[in-house]
Amino acid sequence: MFQVSFPLQNRTVEVEAGTTVLAAEIAAGLHPDAPCGGMGVCGKCRVEILAENGAREEVLACETKIDRDMTVFTASDEHHRILTDGTGSLDRIDPPVRKVSLQVGKATLQNPTSGWARLREAVRKAAGVEIRPDPDLADGLSKTLESLDWEPQAVLYGDELLSLRKEGRLLTAAVDIGTTTVVLYLADGETGEVLSTGSMLNPQTQFGADVISRANYAMQNTPRELSEAIRAAVDSLLRDALFRANASAQDVFSVVIVGNTCMHHLFLGLDPSSLVLSPYVPSISEPLVLDAVRYGLSANRRAKLFLLPCIAGFVGADTASVMLACSYDRREELTLAIDIGTNGELVIGDRTRTVACSTAAGPAFEGAKITFGMRGAAGAIDHASIQNGQLSVSVIGGGKPRGICGSGLLDLAAQMLRAGVIDETGRIADEEDLPGESKPLADRIRTIDGLRCFVIAQGAESDTGECIFISQKDIREIQLAKGAMAAGIALMLEYLGKKETDIEKVLLAGAFGNYMNPESACAIGLIPQKLLSKIEMVGNAAGRGALMCALNAQCYSRSAKMAEKTEFIELASNPSFQDRFVDELMFPEEEE
Amino acid sequence: MFQVSFPLQNRTVEVEAGTTVLAAEIAAGLHPDAPCGGMGVCGKCRVEILAENGAREEVLACETKIDRDMTVFTASDEHHRILTDGTGSLDRIDPPVRKVSLQVGKATLQNPTSGWARLREAVRKAAGVEIRPDPDLADGLSKTLESLDWEPQAVLYGDELLSLRKEGRLLTAAVDIGTTTVVLYLADGETGEVLSTGSMLNPQTQFGADVISRANYAMQNTPRELSEAIRAAVDSLLRDALFRANASAQDVFSVVIVGNTCMHHLFLGLDPSSLVLSPYVPSISEPLVLDAVRYGLSANRRAKLFLLPCIAGFVGADTASVMLACSYDRREELTLAIDIGTNGELVIGDRTRTVACSTAAGPAFEGAKITFGMRGAAGAIDHASIQNGQLSVSVIGGGKPRGICGSGLLDLAAQMLRAGVIDETGRIADEEDLPGESKPLADRIRTIDGLRCFVIAQGAESDTGECIFISQKDIREIQLAKGAMAAGIALMLEYLGKKETDIEKVLLAGAFGNYMNPESACAIGLIPQKLLSKIEMVGNAAGRGALMCALNAQCYSRSAKMAEKTEFIELASNPSFQDRFVDELMFPEEEE
Repeated sequence: MFQVSFPLQNRTVEVEAGTTVLAAEIAAGLHPDAPCGGMGVCGKCRVEILAENGAREEVLACETKIDRDMTVFTASDEHHRILTDGTGSLDRIDPPVRKVSLQVGKATLQNPTSGWARLREAVRKAAGVEIRPDPDLADGLSKTLESLDWEPQAVLYGDELLSLRKEGRLLTAAVDIGTTTVVLYLADGETGEVLSTGSMLNPQTQFGADVISRANYAMQNTPRELSEAIRAAVDSLLRDALFRANASAQDVFSVVIVGNTCMHHLFLGLDPSSLVLSPYVPSISEPLVLDAVRYGLSANRRAKLFLLPCIAGFVGADTASVMLACSYDRREELTLAIDIGTNGELVIGDRTRTVACSTAAGPAFEGAKITFGMRGAAGAIDHASIQNGQLSVSVIGGGKPRGICGSGLLDLAAQMLRAGVIDETGRIADEEDLPGESKPLADRIRTIDGLRCFVIAQGAESDTGECIFISQKDIREIQLAKGAMAAGIALMLEYLGKKETDIEKVLLAGAFGNYMNPESACAIGLIPQKLLSKIEMVGNAAGRGALMCALNAQCYSRSAKMAEKTEFIELASNPSFQDRFVDELMFPEEEE
Repeated sequence: MFQVSFPLQNRTVEVEAGTTVLAAEIAAGLHPDAPCGGMGVCGKCRVEILAENGAREEVLACETKIDRDMTVFTASDEHHRILTDGTGSLDRIDPPVRKVSLQVGKATLQNPTSGWARLREAVRKAAGVEIRPDPDLADGLSKTLESLDWEPQAVLYGDELLSLRKEGRLLTAAVDIGTTTVVLYLADGETGEVLSTGSMLNPQTQFGADVISRANYAMQNTPRELSEAIRAAVDSLLRDALFRANASAQDVFSVVIVGNTCMHHLFLGLDPSSLVLSPYVPSISEPLVLDAVRYGLSANRRAKLFLLPCIAGFVGADTASVMLACSYDRREELTLAIDIGTNGELVIGDRTRTVACSTAAGPAFEGAKITFGMRGAAGAIDHASIQNGQLSVSVIGGGKPRGICGSGLLDLAAQMLRAGVIDETGRIADEEDLPGESKPLADRIRTIDGLRCFVIAQGAESDTGECIFISQKDIREIQLAKGAMAAGIALMLEYLGKKETDIEKVLLAGAFGNYMNPESACAIGLIPQKLLSKIEMVGNAAGRGALMCALNAQCYSRSAKMAEKTEFIELASNPSFQDRFVDELMFPEEEE
């Protein structure tokens, strides 16, 4: 056994010889960034180890095995910027779980009916429902009723009695499990007030950045580790939110969870392999009502857990939730909703008909496969512009840049295109071919490791002293993402028999959608240029939809109906997808 | 710690100083007979211990504390004669849990629906029900379906999927939990064939003979011990029945349980105190459908546990079951059903109206409070007659008698009455007042311990060398039991506005009802004399009703309807009960 210490996090862990540094980070409770799932491909898990001569040596954590006591410097477990507000509105508060005041009659020798029968009668009078018999709640019922002065408060879910008590709050939690980020809202189920919110990185990130790598991990091992990690994360958010709201877990009677199909399956402990093997189907996609405590959540022991329905293997409960938050079932105008997280889901439709599809547009914008890509954390370039041949960038947290997050990458690509640093084919120009006003950018164009690059920050300008750049290969990744998304939109319109101009509204959901510059998105053709004026940011619509369901039972059934009605287009099986995709790889010419 | 050995059972146990011998017997896994619950009152727990000088010394196990290594001779754990057959008929086999062969479609890229959706579609086609989504069964569903060649067999309970498998049996168990005896039938759910049956003493007997002493034990301690004891007993019967039928617990998908309200509550782990405190109400009396494995039963992990409804605190699910077995909901003629176990339950009615009540008639006939009373086990006098002044008895097992069981006691009382040994007031005659033909019985009338007695077996004739007799006090106990039952019948008739002669059928259920001589019962007025010709034995009708429910879903709902419709008469609260009771204490004059 060797000791591995992490001085920056003030942690030490003992591991066996041969363990990778990545595994040691996980064992120490850190959340290393390993988008490729530890395959040695992405290079994102780079850390520094103290060499025996005292120098620092940079290595890939996933490829370095521990063969001695080791000191590791890593930025894992850092704080991330996360979006927690959203759009969507409730008609009224009408939660699926409700509380009712009862007056229960006492038994007499003349009318010796069972405790449960008298309770049932009282609930029938007060709430108009016939409760289902439950021996556990019936235990010692006469004594319980007496101790509550025969006027208990009942907490009900449909015809199920969840609790009998003197009084208490009725709390509910709504959770959006993203591939990268988990957000929780704790709300008062009667007033609808959000009491506290919390968010954290999805701890499954340590098993891979995207759903494919995590599903692979689950297939090679078991889904259990992934399942336990996400359940523990949701529970820690819940406990933390309760603490901050000065509230008790006993008063939480419902939890609503949304997430993409893989997160949905992993939370439930289901084998995700059918999701990533053709024909990419979920094991189960129906809306589910389960027992929250069975899934490790700190809630009342009879609290209900609601999962919104999934639409397909790659269009999950998060999309059903976005559709609810965007009221697709009431929309008169043809609307395109785009939710770019680690995957990009697209919905086009109105109240009469909706189609959905999923594209691989997300990963590039979440940092994977981009040389200096990173998540939207401190040190990330999140916006950029080129004016008169001068590049200026903004950095999250205000210091020197460490890398480039999705919105920054999008701006840079759009600005490079406009400045002629790249042409419509995506090729980075030779210095001498730069248009006149862009000449000052000439010294940023270099060849590094045999690849043509556009330098964003010189060594001295960056946080690490390293030169930060966008390579020709990075531009190709953006083109692939852009091409997939644009082809998806085109195919969906074709499927519906509609044209781009029939779309009257474009709703951008999710963190990336909220931070990105819509002009940049249209400039590179990620979103059709003609739709620029129709774009609206809707924030964390998936989380908002979950909260709507927590506060209104009709919302839950509306989401179920919408999901059932939504047609799914499997791009992979569509013969014209590849053609459209190749067409759309080109950047658009600038419009005037 | 001291060692206590039980040579007759070949068992030894270590207990702490101060433990009672009764507790040591329980700890050794024996089932001592302690009807009073270890209060030192009934004297039934008598055992012999080896004194230090090597002699045997008789002591009460409940009052003797262990203060050294001890050797104990006890008859506990003996084999008992138990009734397991019954009456009642099934219209047809139509079990609540059924199996269906499915053909499930494969997912394709063109039709990538979830595994559950395709399964649901297959069940809809084959069985006409829409199954409820269940994430646990959906786990890895594509792989499961593939391994079953896409043609699985589904086991269904309503809209609940219980199992997906290649093929297998559909087994069901029906259990009658009596206060004294537990009977289990294991049946094939498709053919209705009873594969094996088993029975054993209710191990709760060690905590008290009747429901009152057990409820007291539960109130003074917790219901848990009692609950665990009966669950373990039912499970051991089930495992044994499975073994003898060469069947697997995995194939048991339903278990139906009946029992009086106290047994029902204790099996469920419910506090029974409301049953024995005025106004004597159950905590819950509705028909219940629960999960069998939660109650410790060796069945499929999704097997259903059905409990028939209770009618009142002292009229339980066993009575609901008897009413089903006797088809009260289809009876045209006014019928009296009598189920004498440890309590005596009475039902009078027809398909238009039924009333039920409970009397304390049972205990005397189960051996409690009778000097030489015992259960129907080897050594018990079970029948007796007096012809020409000569008493003859039959003994279970054929040896010398050790005591008198219920049917024997009934015969003896009837014969003594007919022979003039007792008069209508129940008083044992002076020797000189015996009628002529009974003169040879004169030397059987003696005074023992200050009580007038009728000797049944002289010392040399009995198994223990002890003289076996019926005392004046025993006769009084019989009168109390008889008075309670006759008063109950009279009150029920009055309540219905009917006369004795309106009763067209008398059904005797239960072990005692089956073994007793109806002529004796009528002779002492336990059953009105006018009804003798209308008596029919129906065997273990409670067990039979449970089995009917296991094999036919309609039977389960019929029993629920009958229980709901049945009117309950609380004798204790009825002002005329005491009067009637006193009237009925007298034995009837012999009819010619």
